[in-house]
Amino acid sequence: MDRSRLEAFSDGVFAVAITLLALNLTVEGPGHGHLQHQLWGHRWSFAAYLISFFVIGIIWVNHHVLIRSVARVDRTLLFVNLVLLLFVVLIPFSTATAAQYLPVPGEDVKVAMALYSAVFLGMSVGFASIFEWTLHGDHRTVPLPPQAHWPARLRFAGGSSVYVVSMIVALFSAYAAFALIALVAVYYVLEQTPTSRAAPDASGSGSAGG
Amino acid sequence: MDRSRLEAFSDGVFAVAITLLALNLTVEGPGHGHLQHQLWGHRWSFAAYLISFFVIGIIWVNHHVLIRSVARVDRTLLFVNLVLLLFVVLIPFSTATAAQYLPVPGEDVKVAMALYSAVFLGMSVGFASIFEWTLHGDHRTVPLPPQAHWPARLRFAGGSSVYVVSMIVALFSAYAAFALIALVAVYYVLEQTPTSRAAPDASGSGSAGG
Amino acid sequence: MDRSRLEAFSDGVFAVAITLLALNLTVEGPGHGHLQHQLWGHRWSFAAYLISFFVIGIIWVNHHVLIRSVARVDRTLLFVNLVLLLFVVLIPFSTATAAQYLPVPGEDVKVAMALYSAVFLGMSVGFASIFEWTLHGDHRTVPLPPQAHWPARLRFAGGSSVYVVSMIVALFSAYAAFALIALVAVYYVLEQTPTSRAAPDASGSGSAGG
Amino acid sequence: MDRSRLEAFSDGVFAVAITLLALNLTVEGPGHGHLQHQLWGHRWSFAAYLISFFVIGIIWVNHHVLIRSVARVDRTLLFVNLVLLLFVVLIPFSTATAAQYLPVPGEDVKVAMALYSAVFLGMSVGFASIFEWTLHGDHRTVPLPPQAHWPARLRFAGGSSVYVVSMIVALFSAYAAFALIALVAVYYVLEQTPTSRAAPDASGSGSAGG
Repeated sequence: MDRSRLEAFSDGVFAVAITLLALNLTVEGPGHGHLQHQLWGHRWSFAAYLISFFVIGIIWVNHHVLIRSVARVDRTLLFVNLVLLLFVVLIPFSTATAAQYLPVPGEDVKVAMALYSAVFLGMSVGFASIFEWTLHGDHRTVPLPPQAHWPARLRFAGGSSVYVVSMIVALFSAYAAFALIALVAVYYVLEQTPTSRAAPDASGSGSAGG
Repeated sequence: MDRSRLEAFSDGVFAVAITLLALNLTVEGPGHGHLQHQLWGHRWSFAAYLISFFVIGIIWVNHHVLIRSVARVDRTLLFVNLVLLLFVVLIPFSTATAAQYLPVPGEDVKVAMALYSAVFLGMSVGFASIFEWTLHGDHRTVPLPPQAHWPARLRFAGGSSVYVVSMIVALFSAYAAFALIALVAVYYVLEQTPTSRAAPDASGSGSAGG
Repeated sequence: MDRSRLEAFSDGVFAVAITLLALNLTVEGPGHGHLQHQLWGHRWSFAAYLISFFVIGIIWVNHHVLIRSVARVDRTLLFVNLVLLLFVVLIPFSTATAAQYLPVPGEDVKVAMALYSAVFLGMSVGFASIFEWTLHGDHRTVPLPPQAHWPARLRFAGGSSVYVVSMIVALFSAYAAFALIALVAVYYVLEQTPTSRAAPDASGSGSAGG
Repeated sequence: MDRSRLEAFSDGVFAVAITLLALNLTVEGPGHGHLQHQLWGHRWSFAAYLISFFVIGIIWVNHHVLIRSVARVDRTLLFVNLVLLLFVVLIPFSTATAAQYLPVPGEDVKVAMALYSAVFLGMSVGFASIFEWTLHGDHRTVPLPPQAHWPARLRFAGGSSVYVVSMIVALFSAYAAFALIALVAVYYVLEQTPTSRAAPDASGSGSAGG
């Protein structure tokens, strides 16, 4: 079984989800105050759009790299991949909810940011599960040496734990949690510079936490 | 005629339909009560999202397997596939309708769950029709021995009959019908474990009812 | 230049447009009368969904066949194809407008059905333009003999003229125009039976009018 | 690393964004005046739809040509491509905003057209960045001779500068800026005629500014 349809379907879901993010962006239109004030009033929506866009983009890039290491696709992989996509599809919803509550400090915005973090956590755990699947049997084209398994798993756990931390932080300060998620996204994007790429990338999927 | 565009178009429709499911998920926003209460108030929407997501996911996996057994694509297959997709595209609508009525016990929720079941039934019959098409002429790369035709057909009929049953059950209890559809989805997902995969899968599409 | 990205992008647009059709399908929800009455009140929406779905499906099948006859893709083809897609993307809008006005006999529904016909006409002319492009230079893998050009063109013109007729009919009776478009869609679907496929299909795109 | 998934994901985003453009097209429905008056009242929406459709279409065609010149895909390219897509995904939003304000002369429509221009500028700069990336290392299958680098860069800068100009023009006259963007789109489409294609196209991506 080849991996082309797995990639095609996943790419389709990633592409639709990333594009639907922008459906949350609207202005009220004429008669609701100056347009620049309306745009400024939606600044949290734009910030949330930007961050969610890059988080989906990072996971797409890493999905790209990880699936390329897969020797053959079986039904287990198809279903583990579905769990990943289940959370990807929820991102426009969690982003819209975050954007609605970020302008209103209080208890609810903490819940909104915990939800925002939880959806990213689900996505991250789904992605780590695909990686775990690749470690077993003859699932990789180039098997990872056993001594590299735990370091790689730890890196994946590190990626996921960011979102556990941001869920906890959200209960104290929604804005600190939002900043943390933004910083992690910036870090993963910057990590992809030519310099960092020169470093060895034994696992083939070093930055999977995004 | 190769099958790549049939797969690409179908994957596109599956991907868009599965992602549009989440458009039904919204909260009312600030000033409409605590966010956690709003989320709890939408619990049926989340449950319906989850079940519809996996039903589409299961049919996508099975579509993947079934189309791979096809030797050549003709116009008949393209149109039978369109009938399948006609019902896949209706799933976000039937899911949204189910989610609207599940919180309100009464006569209408029974109609909503009958509609929800009917759309899945249409999808399931469309899928069985593709399978039936593969049994004729030289449509399969590896022909199925004639004595395997009827057992395979019965399995497909079994998959479809689940939704006939849930339509009938819905007229008595919408919630029992919803639970039945959920159980069937869970069954199909669990069936895909490594252990069950070890079992012979003569038809190449054993679990087509989902 | 190969044709794979032309197909991938077109398939994406076809898939999104055909799935967005169903966004027009909604019910008012609890407190707006019995659900079955609401569904019945939307019967025109379902009818318009069904017809537009099959018209897009037919044009997708024919696009599939026509592009397969193309030897190489150039920028002219890419832009002519864009014109086709411009009208495909308008179909959810024209369908929604038709569905809004079909329940209300009067002058406006005639305008709505003329618009509905005009969008299909634009799509049909765009498709015929792609065919015309294939007749020139070395654009086809297997050149069509010159004496087959005009018969093929006439068939394409016949397909487009259906929508010219339905535009004119709409000015007298919107419902007659709707029935005409529905009948043409049914005709094209039925034409794809195994029997009709046995007939010679010299142009490789015999039923392009849909 | 091959370029197929980069193309598949990008094509998906382009296809969804171009189709979502038409979600902005709606009429108010029965009881809101004659349908032809409603359609006329939305004439700016149709104009904005048309222009944005072709701008996305042009950039898709050029993306197609540019990526085909790429020898191998690395993570830097994946992220630069994401920046391009970030702005493509914003086009339905900026188009909807422009369509809302174009019927209402005043200060706000100038802001709306500056925003409309700014999103196209971002897209254009993202596209030029991909081209810049192709000039370095062994990123092209057929390296561009060094003396061709600056002429090609100037052409790309010319394409981007159109949107800088339209942003400035918008501050004086929103309608002049809109006409400028429309003219540029028409120019790029007409440039693709068979005659102009006969001209040498050394960079493989001559019209990247769109």
